Amino acid sequence: MTWWGWGAPGHDAALPEHALRFLAAEVGLAEQARGPVDLAAVRLRESALPAGVLQRLLAICGADGARTDREARVWHAAGKSYPDLVRQRTGDCAVAPDVVALPRGDEQVRAVLECCAAAELAVVPFGGGTSVVGGVEPLRGRFRAVVTLDLGRLDRVLEVDPKALVVGVEPGLRLPALEVALAGHGLTLGHFPQSYEFATVGGCAATRSAGQASTGYGRFEELVRGVRLAAPAGELDARAVPATAAGPDLRALVVGSEGTLGVITGLSLSVRPRPPLTRHEGFVLPDFGSGVEALRALAQERAGPDVVRLSDEQETRASLALAGEGGWLRRVGFAYVRARGRAAGALLICGWEGEENEAIGRRARSVAVLRRHDALSLGQAAGAAWVRTRFHGPYLRDALLARGVLVDTLETATSWSRLEALYDAVGVALRGALDRRGTPPLVLCHVSHVYESGASLYFTFLARQEEGAELEQWRAAKCAASEAIMANGGTITHHHAVGTDHLPWMEAEVGSLGLDLIRAAKQTLDPVGVMNPGKLLP
Amino acid sequence: MTWWGWGAPGHDAALPEHALRFLAAEVGLAEQARGPVDLAAVRLRESALPAGVLQRLLAICGADGARTDREARVWHAAGKSYPDLVRQRTGDCAVAPDVVALPRGDEQVRAVLECCAAAELAVVPFGGGTSVVGGVEPLRGRFRAVVTLDLGRLDRVLEVDPKALVVGVEPGLRLPALEVALAGHGLTLGHFPQSYEFATVGGCAATRSAGQASTGYGRFEELVRGVRLAAPAGELDARAVPATAAGPDLRALVVGSEGTLGVITGLSLSVRPRPPLTRHEGFVLPDFGSGVEALRALAQERAGPDVVRLSDEQETRASLALAGEGGWLRRVGFAYVRARGRAAGALLICGWEGEENEAIGRRARSVAVLRRHDALSLGQAAGAAWVRTRFHGPYLRDALLARGVLVDTLETATSWSRLEALYDAVGVALRGALDRRGTPPLVLCHVSHVYESGASLYFTFLARQEEGAELEQWRAAKCAASEAIMANGGTITHHHAVGTDHLPWMEAEVGSLGLDLIRAAKQTLDPVGVMNPGKLLP
Repeated sequence: MTWWGWGAPGHDAALPEHALRFLAAEVGLAEQARGPVDLAAVRLRESALPAGVLQRLLAICGADGARTDREARVWHAAGKSYPDLVRQRTGDCAVAPDVVALPRGDEQVRAVLECCAAAELAVVPFGGGTSVVGGVEPLRGRFRAVVTLDLGRLDRVLEVDPKALVVGVEPGLRLPALEVALAGHGLTLGHFPQSYEFATVGGCAATRSAGQASTGYGRFEELVRGVRLAAPAGELDARAVPATAAGPDLRALVVGSEGTLGVITGLSLSVRPRPPLTRHEGFVLPDFGSGVEALRALAQERAGPDVVRLSDEQETRASLALAGEGGWLRRVGFAYVRARGRAAGALLICGWEGEENEAIGRRARSVAVLRRHDALSLGQAAGAAWVRTRFHGPYLRDALLARGVLVDTLETATSWSRLEALYDAVGVALRGALDRRGTPPLVLCHVSHVYESGASLYFTFLARQEEGAELEQWRAAKCAASEAIMANGGTITHHHAVGTDHLPWMEAEVGSLGLDLIRAAKQTLDPVGVMNPGKLLP
Repeated sequence: MTWWGWGAPGHDAALPEHALRFLAAEVGLAEQARGPVDLAAVRLRESALPAGVLQRLLAICGADGARTDREARVWHAAGKSYPDLVRQRTGDCAVAPDVVALPRGDEQVRAVLECCAAAELAVVPFGGGTSVVGGVEPLRGRFRAVVTLDLGRLDRVLEVDPKALVVGVEPGLRLPALEVALAGHGLTLGHFPQSYEFATVGGCAATRSAGQASTGYGRFEELVRGVRLAAPAGELDARAVPATAAGPDLRALVVGSEGTLGVITGLSLSVRPRPPLTRHEGFVLPDFGSGVEALRALAQERAGPDVVRLSDEQETRASLALAGEGGWLRRVGFAYVRARGRAAGALLICGWEGEENEAIGRRARSVAVLRRHDALSLGQAAGAAWVRTRFHGPYLRDALLARGVLVDTLETATSWSRLEALYDAVGVALRGALDRRGTPPLVLCHVSHVYESGASLYFTFLARQEEGAELEQWRAAKCAASEAIMANGGTITHHHAVGTDHLPWMEAEVGSLGLDLIRAAKQTLDPVGVMNPGKLLP
């Protein structure tokens, strides 16, 4: 991954002409494309690592197991949030870690934690580095230096149990590598977040990830059967049993702890047989509201697809424009849709996966529900096009930043009863905040996960960047949206986690006694407080 | 409920002649039936309530809101575990609470907790009083007196949201009363533990209950969307959102906390439309092993019924014998089954519930899987008979105790890979322990809940009581089974909770750091330690 953006170095992220024209008309573009600064020009502090620590880390992790070089420090200086990208592109790496440790195996992880707790050094666990909420920002807290603990070398599949459909894995294993290993056994994890190409299983557990097919396969936390945590105070082993009534579920304390309690060193995950049938299909609903009602019926009648993604009218319109005249949506059905008076409808992508009879039967029930809600099918080509581009979103950000466009996403969830009010309030908040700064935004939204009791809302907002005040501009929009979320019964995050960006709303989210409970767990597992300071807990 | 056994006072729990003959031959019976002692003969200590506390409780809960009379104290002296019943029947109520408080509404609960924390009095939350693991035993811990906090007056349905399929309820609401209220809205909770007639929603949440249809509807913890806890340190409100990534799931700390952290004062629960179709059906599998493989296929192919209950050969044989010549199983299919050479097979009850097409389609897929595993159908009469008797088990215990028979149940769960070894080990342990005491047992087992990764095992064991050493005899069997469970990858409890009876195995279950985490939560919410001492935490 590049240190300043998304994807492998050298990939092409240029936007086509028609997309640039659309964005120029909607939000405005910078006249000149601006690239990131060179690695050599990035501003770094001297490593503040106390004498002797580097030697101790090398003794623990081996001769190549601790790095203080520019490349390693810059690469681990940030995740992939909008503020991260703005800072990295301009070469501001003041927060870079003082050293990057690269342990192999959980004994080395425990030894690194002991070393850091003894030397009073902050520790930032780092998986794929894909956090979009500041989760891997190497903050020092009250400590004199910070060690980023890169889990990339804990990347083994330890056990495959095809009888129980459970696998044992190390935390630094990337999702695609796990899928490759599972394919050899005819299995799949079925977890496909937009960060799929780079995300690690440990990161998914630490942040309560949800993937594009989690409506069907379950959120990552539902896939975690057992989890092992190395903490400064010792090892916690929440072992894998299918179900238990033996007191509170301690797995739920580790999952979502975002590296603040310790380092996840092992996971037992539920897997499934690879689906013999996978079918993705597009539909157009008369409008977003009727689409939401259709999704509610699908979820509550248990007739639902494994993948659902319902765009509002604005996102549907933007998808059409960005796809261009030759784009898939125009090609497959737009003329037909327009002919039926649905030019301003809401696009829905559905995916069914499973054993043939089961999936075909479920699709038939889904389609019956959708027809009841006046959906028009766009066929499988629209679904296939979505599958082809399902991980492309993060790449576009680099191209947009290069042309001076603010782009960020935020997400929430609430009950079906409050969904419409929450949708309206967040849209009003984002438009209000950015209008007030003279940069009227384009606000897009889709529902990506449905539950019996409610659904998620995923917002994308774009605006012309305020040059020189990029972070203030972003913060104004982020704060306005977050306040609207909390005032309307939403959760501050449905699957992006808390990190640094959602800290101000954690007390509203869980209450002061809730925060005290997390702090008590931290005091027990990490009495010196070295683990990932400045994240999760205000 | 009677203070010495199960069910409303006066119900008839006599065993028919053929059942007595079977039990006499299998384990032996006492010659004379022995009833419980009279209420007046029960041995009670003087209430040790400090001066003034009763007045304060009356001031909080109203004139009838605090009781120290014999009936109230004896009734709240025990749950319904085997040791509880043995002690209650013989009139040993030394542990009875010093007072029973009956608050109304969560403000009164909070006031009672404040009063007890200030006066340093132990508090035992009491819902339906159906614990079979000592969960409501009024232990004093290090305190001079104990207050049982009966939640029976917090029994309201606060809100029904048919759009989000969520209801808000008070903790003391009994499951049948909730179903009556929901029926008026065309809804159901779908939670049917064997204690259904008496269990409360708060108790189900505090103990991580599973019901007979939880394979389909989900365990109680999966139905809890939000939960409010009144603790001596304040109120924790884990509000209801369909899903979130905002840090660790604090609901999971409250659910399963068994009254040791505070008192659950409110719950948001997922409900479903009442199923238009409910179909129960019996099958016979060649043996328990092939039945287990069939259940694994049902769970992993997502073709499963909502209710599954597979008896091993011993339980099948005992069911036939106890049903008698006129019994349902003989009537509906035993001749047929015997003709097919399946006299020693394994009985399976399945239930499908849902919207007509969905449930019928799922049943067809289930039956295809079962046929692959050589199952013979016994038809719907066998299923209907099971439905009629599904809550009868606890009543039988009174009749058995009256005839000098030790009877208890215990349950566990493990992965499909370890299920057979765990099944064997627990059977060997129970038979060995009771053989050694000269009381060879009848050990029966069934699988009652299936998951993709594994299943539960539910054991029933019966033996002639050792008169005068009833509790030592029971403890020997319980310990042997529990050690076998922990040595074979099982959980110490799948749905009965920890209480006092499973305390010795909690460290093996969650580790010493796991216990420290629960203690840290308790220290935060209940710094004086008054909440339900002697339960959950060794």
